Amino acid sequence: MPRNVTIALDAMSGDLGATTAVDAAVSMVRQFDDLSIVLVGDREVLDPLLKGSALTGRKRLSVQHASEIVTMEDAPAQAIRSKKDSSMRVAINLVRDGDAQACVSCGNTGALMAIARFVLKMLEGIDRPAIITSIPNIHGHVQMLDLGANVDCSAEHLYQFAVMGSALSSVVDSKASPRVALLNIGSEDIKGNQQVKETSKLLEESTLNYIGFVEGNEIYMGDVDVVVADGFVGNVALKTSEGVAKLIREYLGQEFKRSLLTKAMALVASPVLKKLGQRIDPRRYDGASLLGLRGIVIKSHGSADAVAMESALKIARLEAKKDLISLLTSHTDAQVLHQGDLHRT
Amino acid sequence: MPRNVTIALDAMSGDLGATTAVDAAVSMVRQFDDLSIVLVGDREVLDPLLKGSALTGRKRLSVQHASEIVTMEDAPAQAIRSKKDSSMRVAINLVRDGDAQACVSCGNTGALMAIARFVLKMLEGIDRPAIITSIPNIHGHVQMLDLGANVDCSAEHLYQFAVMGSALSSVVDSKASPRVALLNIGSEDIKGNQQVKETSKLLEESTLNYIGFVEGNEIYMGDVDVVVADGFVGNVALKTSEGVAKLIREYLGQEFKRSLLTKAMALVASPVLKKLGQRIDPRRYDGASLLGLRGIVIKSHGSADAVAMESALKIARLEAKKDLISLLTSHTDAQVLHQGDLHRT
Repeated sequence: MPRNVTIALDAMSGDLGATTAVDAAVSMVRQFDDLSIVLVGDREVLDPLLKGSALTGRKRLSVQHASEIVTMEDAPAQAIRSKKDSSMRVAINLVRDGDAQACVSCGNTGALMAIARFVLKMLEGIDRPAIITSIPNIHGHVQMLDLGANVDCSAEHLYQFAVMGSALSSVVDSKASPRVALLNIGSEDIKGNQQVKETSKLLEESTLNYIGFVEGNEIYMGDVDVVVADGFVGNVALKTSEGVAKLIREYLGQEFKRSLLTKAMALVASPVLKKLGQRIDPRRYDGASLLGLRGIVIKSHGSADAVAMESALKIARLEAKKDLISLLTSHTDAQVLHQGDLHRT
Repeated sequence: MPRNVTIALDAMSGDLGATTAVDAAVSMVRQFDDLSIVLVGDREVLDPLLKGSALTGRKRLSVQHASEIVTMEDAPAQAIRSKKDSSMRVAINLVRDGDAQACVSCGNTGALMAIARFVLKMLEGIDRPAIITSIPNIHGHVQMLDLGANVDCSAEHLYQFAVMGSALSSVVDSKASPRVALLNIGSEDIKGNQQVKETSKLLEESTLNYIGFVEGNEIYMGDVDVVVADGFVGNVALKTSEGVAKLIREYLGQEFKRSLLTKAMALVASPVLKKLGQRIDPRRYDGASLLGLRGIVIKSHGSADAVAMESALKIARLEAKKDLISLLTSHTDAQVLHQGDLHRT
């Protein structure tokens, strides 16, 4: 992977403000010699934050001015029309113009999707962008999509998600033939809703390594590389998972706090509990890719701290270095042709 | 609650066999003076299992012979037509005939639903049965439905689930005015799929204590008593939760097994870890109610052991003692009338 990468970082849209974005960027250029980061936002805010740092990689950090900020309240259409100089828009423009190979934003997901789609356009044969992220599982991790971009999907849309998810997994996870599964509520053919049954038929005829249905528990326990769901179901699965993990952490804390004795046990066990905490820390999995666009766009969590934002920046760097878009283009071309064949038969 | 209760227990359909069912029944009649259990199944198998036990409550245990067993492979329609003397069918018949106030089965869910619907019939104004269970959350627990009985639901169906869930929560959890929420992917009005939006409108006009949308994480973290979803989404949420809990238990085990030192830590912390294990033990939450029928039918997990089966039997006892069906009838009548009003406007 000899390629140098420039990432445009929307430095203004996160809940924790520009300082966090600058911290993450500084840490990233220190870690990766091949990485440059353009901090996009109000120069009067960003310049002073960078000034102090006479650090390694300082010359690989630059500022691109943008005078506006897309807020969480801005409707997507409004963000496109009336905030043409927002940090989000300018960051995406840098990708369109080839000045950056990827962009990262913690901002309003709806606006980010709409602006990215408007500015970058969709890949050939893909109707809608999908949100994908990697989720820890018993064998390492699994890629899951869509996580909320599309709430009323057709079988064709799910099919397209499968094609894109497979391409992403082959690139990012270096899997030769990623195992693709459909999220369903039973492994038998008779189960599932209409949408899932139709999608399964399309996938059976495709050249993807389609392994059939998985149930919710198999996201975490199954032998699978890519799990495909519509955005409603995928989002529920993701958010539910966060809730369960939080509940168990809470229970663990409660149990250890019950008495002086259990508090002492907690002290003894604390290195292990800390390790566990790190493994299930959602910040480590921050950074969801908006797939289907003619450019790499990564959504970081709205309340992302520097640790989370670094995770997102690492994903952006990896996808850019491995030239995900070229590979997606060739994958989707091949598969969409195939899909076209299906329709003719 | 002065009422004595008789439960018909399908003793033949669980993976672990009749011994487990008998163990659970024996333990239950020992714990509850007001409880009688009819073990339904092959008399030649069940009689010897009971014979040895000259125990408290022995006379509140009886056997009802049934010569057949519905297997996991039997299609629902086939189970109805060709297994009229199955333990499942006979147990449900006992409820129909008033010889039992509830039945419990670990068998094939599809067959159980179909037979129960065929034998017991639906409540007035309810089109389809829904599966509901209580799930632990930060404030205690929450009732969630549907968990997989209905995969392609209309807004009307979801509305009916909400009415039934609310009634169940008021009875079983003794809530005066259960807070009912719809599972969605965002708290803003603009988010969500068509089905959820339409249901929300119906619920806003209802007399239920409808509190709006919740996201997946709020099942576990939210101030809510009843979470309503279609069977596909609800099932994914439930199964996903099981997967996450299992993964975290696995991680915890791995971390404590890393070295001699961490193994020693595990030894010190083991009472606390055991407590945690109990709190997240799915067997403690076993027993899902099939709601909407003119009788109490509880589904226990296929691989339920005696602990899990006892949980299911306890739910059956509570619903029977509190006369859930009468209360459901009055609730659904009132709400369905109201729904009728909606349609006329």
